[in-house]
Amino acid sequence: MRRSDTRCAGQRPEGETTAQASRGIFVTIEGPDFSGKSTLVRAMRPLLAGDEPPTHFTREPGGTPAAERIRALVLDPEVEMDAWTEAYLYAAARADHARHGILPRLVRGENVVCERYLDSSLAYQGYGRGLGVEAVRELNAWAVGAVVPDRTFYLRIGVEERARRVRKLGASLDRIEKVGDEFWRRVEEGFEELIRLDPHRIEVLDGERPPEELAELVVGEIRSLRYTCGGDG
Amino acid sequence: MRRSDTRCAGQRPEGETTAQASRGIFVTIEGPDFSGKSTLVRAMRPLLAGDEPPTHFTREPGGTPAAERIRALVLDPEVEMDAWTEAYLYAAARADHARHGILPRLVRGENVVCERYLDSSLAYQGYGRGLGVEAVRELNAWAVGAVVPDRTFYLRIGVEERARRVRKLGASLDRIEKVGDEFWRRVEEGFEELIRLDPHRIEVLDGERPPEELAELVVGEIRSLRYTCGGDG
Repeated sequence: MRRSDTRCAGQRPEGETTAQASRGIFVTIEGPDFSGKSTLVRAMRPLLAGDEPPTHFTREPGGTPAAERIRALVLDPEVEMDAWTEAYLYAAARADHARHGILPRLVRGENVVCERYLDSSLAYQGYGRGLGVEAVRELNAWAVGAVVPDRTFYLRIGVEERARRVRKLGASLDRIEKVGDEFWRRVEEGFEELIRLDPHRIEVLDGERPPEELAELVVGEIRSLRYTCGGDG
Repeated sequence: MRRSDTRCAGQRPEGETTAQASRGIFVTIEGPDFSGKSTLVRAMRPLLAGDEPPTHFTREPGGTPAAERIRALVLDPEVEMDAWTEAYLYAAARADHARHGILPRLVRGENVVCERYLDSSLAYQGYGRGLGVEAVRELNAWAVGAVVPDRTFYLRIGVEERARRVRKLGASLDRIEKVGDEFWRRVEEGFEELIRLDPHRIEVLDGERPPEELAELVVGEIRSLRYTCGGDG
């Protein structure tokens, strides 16, 4: 159980000395498919472009060469696999990404913004595929380690808006996206349950607002977290 | 913890009815690289060719289309990855193989002989990579499920014999094989520890004996297990 209930989760592990206090802020962007995560991140990039320390943008699955190879496999619509295999592949990619992509940057004092992270595994495999949220959390324990988000932004959109976006963008669906409505319902209910369990970490955003507005809001919070969590000393 | 300490581990889960008593025998062949696992299996095939029920031969990682894709990735010497990622990838392949390759055959009453299984993960990742045997065992719990070997044959060879085989066969080494002597020592000590912990399941074979002799011995034991574990009713 490496989940955090505090506002500055990744910041102050027990026994941390003041010399390590400038660890960066780790922010994740979560939400179901078509909720606008990538669009939000695209709008955030220019706003943070000149900041010091810099912010590194990444996304899961992927973020390191090994994790990108796993991404290609797990999202390949031609490969049929057991739901547990899917859960293990996401954890495999996460283990490499967390340790070799995210953690070194946080330790150097950089901020990291990651599209999807553990919450997506809990929602998609735990709730959506029905493996059970606690099993998927335990399975991911060694992958996540101490790399826990300080803050998570969840993009919530309505059913009609998603249907509209699917029609507009949904020309080629990957393996995860090619599943039925019942799956989507379980994934979204899963996310809502995660929000109820961890309201201090997960902030809900109205995913139907203009991405520029959302980006301003999120960037403001990252700068504020940097300050309140002592990232700038 | 799905490891078994009984002689007919996969045979009689609690509450199993007599109608399910004809489940096949699950045998694994373990040992360090160059211990002669594939050679042994090759010698076993003709001996079991006419038997009813049939015996299915398979090996890890692999055994299903998804697991074969994972095999190609985890054994690719060009891909550098975290040791945890490696452990998760083996578990990912195992989850698909155990559920969709091995279990359906056992349920149909066939025997299954598998080169490498959970013990290899415990020895290579748990001991060899130093992740810890209990962590790797827990990590694999959802992959293995109820698919536990009834009997495991471990091929033990001496240091000099392995050096001889490496020189003879070792032209192209995969990623797992391209590691130092210290790693090999830990893997072998890991296997020896697993044998000490589970002597009823794991039988040690002298891997320097002729493969035909070893094959006769193993096939005799499989037929005997089939009888004593009630596989033939």
